[in-house]
Amino acid sequence: MRVLALSGSLRAASINTAFCRAAARLAPPGTQVIVEGGVSELPLFNPDLEASLPAAVRRFHEAVASADALLIASPEYAHGVSGVLKNALDWLVSIEGVVGKPVAMINTSPRAHHAQDSLAEILRTMSLNLVAGASVSVPLLGYCNTEQSMLDSEQVRSAVARMFGELAATLAARDPQGPSFPLN
Amino acid sequence: MRVLALSGSLRAASINTAFCRAAARLAPPGTQVIVEGGVSELPLFNPDLEASLPAAVRRFHEAVASADALLIASPEYAHGVSGVLKNALDWLVSIEGVVGKPVAMINTSPRAHHAQDSLAEILRTMSLNLVAGASVSVPLLGYCNTEQSMLDSEQVRSAVARMFGELAATLAARDPQGPSFPLN
Repeated sequence: MRVLALSGSLRAASINTAFCRAAARLAPPGTQVIVEGGVSELPLFNPDLEASLPAAVRRFHEAVASADALLIASPEYAHGVSGVLKNALDWLVSIEGVVGKPVAMINTSPRAHHAQDSLAEILRTMSLNLVAGASVSVPLLGYCNTEQSMLDSEQVRSAVARMFGELAATLAARDPQGPSFPLN
Repeated sequence: MRVLALSGSLRAASINTAFCRAAARLAPPGTQVIVEGGVSELPLFNPDLEASLPAAVRRFHEAVASADALLIASPEYAHGVSGVLKNALDWLVSIEGVVGKPVAMINTSPRAHHAQDSLAEILRTMSLNLVAGASVSVPLLGYCNTEQSMLDSEQVRSAVARMFGELAATLAARDPQGPSFPLN
């Protein structure tokens, strides 16, 4: 299983990016997590560019298309989805290979529900498959801010295991003839 | 009265940008509307850059600070606020001069309510003063797509007049000792 992890924050010390990296290191055998840095290189979305896509957008489309599932971890800014993340999603609307792709939506600050509610609505509208069981809330903000502290946290390890298990189960259920993934 | 108009779309033929331009041409005497093109030049929001802001961000901050009010017209992308607009707003969170600034929120496609609901929540969270009476819905999508057709539309002219009148009344009520603006 190949999972593309998108963080909604460009801050170097971002908790959400740290979570993506921790998840990559905690992935079970057979699961590969790519922490996508290309989001920061995307131009602002402009439908006029769709006829001749910038290279950064083409690379992003290929990264998404070649992933079996997405992991999205994003901060809430002013009760909304971060512009960085929404800009990336705007570039994915109506491209091939997005419809039905399983997504795990991670909330590292569970008191923040406005952005998560908006994001869920956006992902469903894009016909992504928001996997409820894989969408975990892990209250990290304030006391578990670094990749290492997440790797050491039993709560994070258990949330990440559940997330990967649910994503794998979703993929396996969708394609019973295809490859299966370890669920442990 | 000086109004800064922000369009949430970078498309050359954007209805929302056309509305901003039409509003600028329909503004009553004493009201100046600046259609802000700098939104397209903003980098993706990164809190790490706040210590040494890029020139495009500084110019945008100055444009906002020097405006008495904002006019925001934005499309809905996948039931969400456009990433372009949210990115611009993310750069405005917690800067001086934004708190209490009156905002007119224009919806050119009234069937689209998800993005407008999210945007209203975001603007309120940023402590902008979302002026309900100035926030007009004008169903333009599909049959009134160009600046000229808007200038010719009685419905648009009337909506724009109401918008400027309500913004001016809001400013006048807030500062009874300050300059007044024609309300016609």
